[in-house]
Amino acid sequence: MGMFLLTEMTWPEVKQALNTVKLAIIPVGAHEQHGPHMKESCDAVLATEMSKRLAERLHPFALVTPTVNFGVSHHHANFPGTISLQPETLICVLRDMVVSLKHHGISRFLFLNAHGGNQSTLSIACHSLTRELNVEIYYAKTTASAKNALKRHVKSPLYGHSCEREVSEALYLAPHLVHMDRLEKGDIREGKWRKLRPGNPVQGTYSYEDMTANGCIGDAPKASAEAGKAIVEEALDQLTTSLSELLNLTGKKVPCSNCKKSGGCKELSTCLS
Amino acid sequence: MGMFLLTEMTWPEVKQALNTVKLAIIPVGAHEQHGPHMKESCDAVLATEMSKRLAERLHPFALVTPTVNFGVSHHHANFPGTISLQPETLICVLRDMVVSLKHHGISRFLFLNAHGGNQSTLSIACHSLTRELNVEIYYAKTTASAKNALKRHVKSPLYGHSCEREVSEALYLAPHLVHMDRLEKGDIREGKWRKLRPGNPVQGTYSYEDMTANGCIGDAPKASAEAGKAIVEEALDQLTTSLSELLNLTGKKVPCSNCKKSGGCKELSTCLS
Amino acid sequence: MGMFLLTEMTWPEVKQALNTVKLAIIPVGAHEQHGPHMKESCDAVLATEMSKRLAERLHPFALVTPTVNFGVSHHHANFPGTISLQPETLICVLRDMVVSLKHHGISRFLFLNAHGGNQSTLSIACHSLTRELNVEIYYAKTTASAKNALKRHVKSPLYGHSCEREVSEALYLAPHLVHMDRLEKGDIREGKWRKLRPGNPVQGTYSYEDMTANGCIGDAPKASAEAGKAIVEEALDQLTTSLSELLNLTGKKVPCSNCKKSGGCKELSTCLS
Amino acid sequence: MGMFLLTEMTWPEVKQALNTVKLAIIPVGAHEQHGPHMKESCDAVLATEMSKRLAERLHPFALVTPTVNFGVSHHHANFPGTISLQPETLICVLRDMVVSLKHHGISRFLFLNAHGGNQSTLSIACHSLTRELNVEIYYAKTTASAKNALKRHVKSPLYGHSCEREVSEALYLAPHLVHMDRLEKGDIREGKWRKLRPGNPVQGTYSYEDMTANGCIGDAPKASAEAGKAIVEEALDQLTTSLSELLNLTGKKVPCSNCKKSGGCKELSTCLS
Amino acid sequence: MGMFLLTEMTWPEVKQALNTVKLAIIPVGAHEQHGPHMKESCDAVLATEMSKRLAERLHPFALVTPTVNFGVSHHHANFPGTISLQPETLICVLRDMVVSLKHHGISRFLFLNAHGGNQSTLSIACHSLTRELNVEIYYAKTTASAKNALKRHVKSPLYGHSCEREVSEALYLAPHLVHMDRLEKGDIREGKWRKLRPGNPVQGTYSYEDMTANGCIGDAPKASAEAGKAIVEEALDQLTTSLSELLNLTGKKVPCSNCKKSGGCKELSTCLS
Amino acid sequence: MGMFLLTEMTWPEVKQALNTVKLAIIPVGAHEQHGPHMKESCDAVLATEMSKRLAERLHPFALVTPTVNFGVSHHHANFPGTISLQPETLICVLRDMVVSLKHHGISRFLFLNAHGGNQSTLSIACHSLTRELNVEIYYAKTTASAKNALKRHVKSPLYGHSCEREVSEALYLAPHLVHMDRLEKGDIREGKWRKLRPGNPVQGTYSYEDMTANGCIGDAPKASAEAGKAIVEEALDQLTTSLSELLNLTGKKVPCSNCKKSGGCKELSTCLS
Repeated sequence: MGMFLLTEMTWPEVKQALNTVKLAIIPVGAHEQHGPHMKESCDAVLATEMSKRLAERLHPFALVTPTVNFGVSHHHANFPGTISLQPETLICVLRDMVVSLKHHGISRFLFLNAHGGNQSTLSIACHSLTRELNVEIYYAKTTASAKNALKRHVKSPLYGHSCEREVSEALYLAPHLVHMDRLEKGDIREGKWRKLRPGNPVQGTYSYEDMTANGCIGDAPKASAEAGKAIVEEALDQLTTSLSELLNLTGKKVPCSNCKKSGGCKELSTCLS
Repeated sequence: MGMFLLTEMTWPEVKQALNTVKLAIIPVGAHEQHGPHMKESCDAVLATEMSKRLAERLHPFALVTPTVNFGVSHHHANFPGTISLQPETLICVLRDMVVSLKHHGISRFLFLNAHGGNQSTLSIACHSLTRELNVEIYYAKTTASAKNALKRHVKSPLYGHSCEREVSEALYLAPHLVHMDRLEKGDIREGKWRKLRPGNPVQGTYSYEDMTANGCIGDAPKASAEAGKAIVEEALDQLTTSLSELLNLTGKKVPCSNCKKSGGCKELSTCLS
Repeated sequence: MGMFLLTEMTWPEVKQALNTVKLAIIPVGAHEQHGPHMKESCDAVLATEMSKRLAERLHPFALVTPTVNFGVSHHHANFPGTISLQPETLICVLRDMVVSLKHHGISRFLFLNAHGGNQSTLSIACHSLTRELNVEIYYAKTTASAKNALKRHVKSPLYGHSCEREVSEALYLAPHLVHMDRLEKGDIREGKWRKLRPGNPVQGTYSYEDMTANGCIGDAPKASAEAGKAIVEEALDQLTTSLSELLNLTGKKVPCSNCKKSGGCKELSTCLS
Repeated sequence: MGMFLLTEMTWPEVKQALNTVKLAIIPVGAHEQHGPHMKESCDAVLATEMSKRLAERLHPFALVTPTVNFGVSHHHANFPGTISLQPETLICVLRDMVVSLKHHGISRFLFLNAHGGNQSTLSIACHSLTRELNVEIYYAKTTASAKNALKRHVKSPLYGHSCEREVSEALYLAPHLVHMDRLEKGDIREGKWRKLRPGNPVQGTYSYEDMTANGCIGDAPKASAEAGKAIVEEALDQLTTSLSELLNLTGKKVPCSNCKKSGGCKELSTCLS
Repeated sequence: MGMFLLTEMTWPEVKQALNTVKLAIIPVGAHEQHGPHMKESCDAVLATEMSKRLAERLHPFALVTPTVNFGVSHHHANFPGTISLQPETLICVLRDMVVSLKHHGISRFLFLNAHGGNQSTLSIACHSLTRELNVEIYYAKTTASAKNALKRHVKSPLYGHSCEREVSEALYLAPHLVHMDRLEKGDIREGKWRKLRPGNPVQGTYSYEDMTANGCIGDAPKASAEAGKAIVEEALDQLTTSLSELLNLTGKKVPCSNCKKSGGCKELSTCLS
Repeated sequence: MGMFLLTEMTWPEVKQALNTVKLAIIPVGAHEQHGPHMKESCDAVLATEMSKRLAERLHPFALVTPTVNFGVSHHHANFPGTISLQPETLICVLRDMVVSLKHHGISRFLFLNAHGGNQSTLSIACHSLTRELNVEIYYAKTTASAKNALKRHVKSPLYGHSCEREVSEALYLAPHLVHMDRLEKGDIREGKWRKLRPGNPVQGTYSYEDMTANGCIGDAPKASAEAGKAIVEEALDQLTTSLSELLNLTGKKVPCSNCKKSGGCKELSTCLS
């Protein structure tokens, strides 16, 4: 299947693509420690890979922009290598991207985010830029909508960072991110953080090293490419359905890159040939 | 029971209070439409009332600052009277407050928030200001932790604004906010907003008038002061417990304003006399 | 008489009010020490009370917004409890308020200010926002225009903060702000501040504790509700006349809430029935 | 007599001067229309000339920096040639100047301002930068302290811009600014501005062309160099006295550039030889 | 040879690397049109590839951070697909990166830039951040120092964007960026831009489409991997020498990843085994 | 010949001038040390003098605004007297000037700059403000285009600050800037700066005192008014030609202030009488 990936296109190709494109997918990642077994680019790579697969599903109505490869990661700052943007900086980068793409005629955007620490900032960016620039912006955590697969494959009570979920996703989407020979469970420390996690009466900030000595939580050794596949594909199904409805694409015939029938032989994401 | 309410104090009284105070509670509200049956100051008033009751529970370790009586309410802008701060402005106000109070020796803060639309901004303010000012900041939605009471008393599938929950809270905390003779259910309209609510694969911005013609959701006529009491008191219990632990107040003997025993005759929130 | 007080209204009531409203009165206060005999919310409360009375006079052409309950008070920072906004923050708050209210169709604004330390910032806000937002903005110190009453009732050479003027105003407008049993004259200290007061060849900044040990100036024990009434009512007369002219309301017949005659039986502020 | 004028000095000369300098005088002007008879650089030139004369009086304790030759002049924008800074920009320029000079060891500053429209901004700059940079800042309107001479020589009820006061000052300090053959009285128009001038119950913004058709107020043809001398010299006396006290210079012996006695033969500003 | 590439490392690996690392190389690219024959990610990819090769030369004293994959490209905005940052945004991103890396103990930085349009912004970022953060920052255009090779291999009088130089570099460093079957010379249009190019009496802004109809300048069909190699390797020699001197690395023995001798068997970049 | 110099004009004169003016020349200088033999205002004065002469050449199509008399000079901060703007501040000042002048109907601007340290900032200001304000902005280093004269009269390998070039320019344009009896060659120190000068593989920041003990470079004693004249006049020729073409003035007949023929007797800059 085809896909519009802006990094790989020339301007005449982009010009052609803009005839059908209705949505720009902006992958939003981070550069931060992911324990002893994952590379620090994990979130940037996973956001990119998810964006590509989603663009494939929505082809030829979506294009993928270059990745925002830094995020808001100050809670990981005490682990070597972490680089973090101020929330204001991330919003400025997204504003500049949306302004540039609006100039090319795109008016709908999805911030597809692989890093939990970005969610509040993306929420504000979504609300502010929608109003300020008169565009329509959505945002999503990459695989949060895979509710069934997550229930089935993720068993740790505390998970969400370099855990069996994230490592599984990586094993399916970008296995080079994972050192299989170094997989470790989270080395959890006790502390105030327990009282500040989501679901508690109050929330607050804590440093990741207060929670985990090795930088992971959850149970990475339980990860598998199979679980990753289940999570990723369920999320892609969910995202595709939701965006098809939001963009009024449901049932639309599109040119099919498999069978090459002109005029469109298939409905979106469902090759008929 | 006593309570430290900054608006009602002189500076010598504040000076005295600072001998025991460990936490400043900053009530954060909004000024926005609340349908035909609630006054627009609803969130500012409820945040204030909850803060006062929480300060009573934590006395003499907490004080209540003046209320931030505006919030981030752009989604209500098309209903007459709504006034909204930019997220950046709200953060500036909170920064200035925290800086001022830190100068008086306070190093722990709770943003006690009555308006859902403020949560992302408070999350960023909490994380940024904690780091920037070297203080400890918590934030909480006023009654979100009353999980049992909410389950028992709130039956609408879509609730959270001028609904049976909020009206019940007001009937218990500040009944003048409610026009009992005008109570209406949410006059729900269909639209894109359904696909963008929390829990969906993607989130996004919508205007409140796209969701409800009268500005409410839920089922306000089901509200009661009794339900409000259950919700509020459960939330206060939860918040008190959580903050007592975070501030290391558990089991601490405090001077008792009932029995006046010097040296302290009671544990926090539990008068023994 | 009636009054449009935004905090007490529902959106349908605001919608109705906007049919006649020509002016939004924005009360601007402060949260700062006021010596041993006044509560720290003094300026916020007085700004609110003056705004309500002025709105009554201008009814149904004016509405009162929620109060800006913090101001620029860094010179009071060394007295416990004072909370201060940066001038930039105060301007941001006012900008957001004016933008919000302009969206509802209001184009004229009065910043009614009870705190001297805000005046320069309000001057800049007035000039900048008028130009930037294409609205008409006025600002006023609450009772500065009561020139006769001030001459008659204020005798201290140095006055203006928790003095006989301010305490008198409070005794008339909001007596709960005053501890009558603790009234003190300003406990004046000598220092550079004398050379920097208004009227000197140069101006400059000084901390309030360099001028007064107890945080007051003037002679609070001389205050009376009677003096407060004279000051407040003269100022309200002055403000009403000035605004009626600026808004072209002079001689306008308005619906009368006393006699209920339809079509209007009276001129502004002067019930004929 | 000597004078330290930074524009005319080399760095070794500045280095030498810093041995005695305690105050940097920053002339603050404007570039704006001054009616048919004065050049638009009027305020910048007058601020510079006053600063030089004041530095002479305070020699060797003061130096004059380059002039801030733009100010806040948006109310003159509709007369050709006017150039205006935003208040924020003016504050940034002053901050950068103070930071630079503090690096050279100067900790006290006078903003000597010739343009009324700058006063609010200078007030804020003074208060904010004093706190932010831990320096001591004063500000003054150039000749406002010449109360006696102003009473004697200025008779127009409405004056303050290209009027008999300002033209007189220019005739004494910088006569090339004035076209004697074009002197005109203010060509006053009626309008809202009368209700917004200082001393009225409310203040507000108006454009200068609403007040005067030719851009002047007052009665320029009454101006004289003699009046200018009286105003300027009285103001310089006032400023010198005030600053000598603030800087603890009163009675200090200083090296005398007339008689060259080493060790100092005179008191400040009073050559004994 | 080894190389420290932050995207490919885990935190324990980074921790280990920080024992020797003295320089962080920050690749700075752009996302902009590059004519019909190059992909829009060209500058981001070339900056990354050059950084990797330079880090190899400087191993184990340098590490490569994730790439800044957007730049200042407004002059290309009218060609489809171009995304541009405001200069202020780019500076914010770089500030956040430098702050983060300084926290890990790195104090020297190289902005290695592949896009001419970024140079002024990088100059300001270098000067401002050096001062503000007390670090040492250098910046360089990737291959500008290859003076001999450029003279030999680049013959177009007007070159610098998707020309024989840039295509040659890509053919050597990242050939997938180039569509060999679509190589075109710049389709130059006449216009004001000629008078605004570097070397003219005045400089100024022009849009790229005013200069070239196909988005290229120079003579891409003359490009070759061989020319690219000559340019790139000469530039790497120059950069390595310059940085070795600036970092005092010249002649330093380093651990050799070829022969594994402990204690170091070679001088920088020159394996002896 | 005539010249439009805004500082010397009244508003009716400016109004008249705007009938022909097509370009505002904004002189941009600095206030910084210039060694033992030049006054610190050097760059501000030279920028002003060059602007006046250029305006004469372009009369009646150009006017000169007041001078920006501070620049970006942090590298000179350790020599007494230097005052520096942040780059952001300089851009704000230029934005405010351009906005003001655009209001008067001017749409083309030249930043005529005498200080190398401003160039990057002016480049960004030019690109950003052109786009943001929809005007046309050029910028130029005052005498950089005098390539022949520079080659003839400047022999030092390292020059550009208080050297034979700059002193020569001053001797021709503003001799009071120079102390002929104190002329010194640059007292060069060795250090890292050599590796960071333009033309090296990497650029970076260094403090001027690291390069020169007396604050000069080059060979000031070789300076002469004659060399200055050659440099200045060649640059004026270059700038006049370039701007005449950019503004489409070439061959235009203009009113001649020498011979007073109505209707124009001469071509631009070339009096025929």
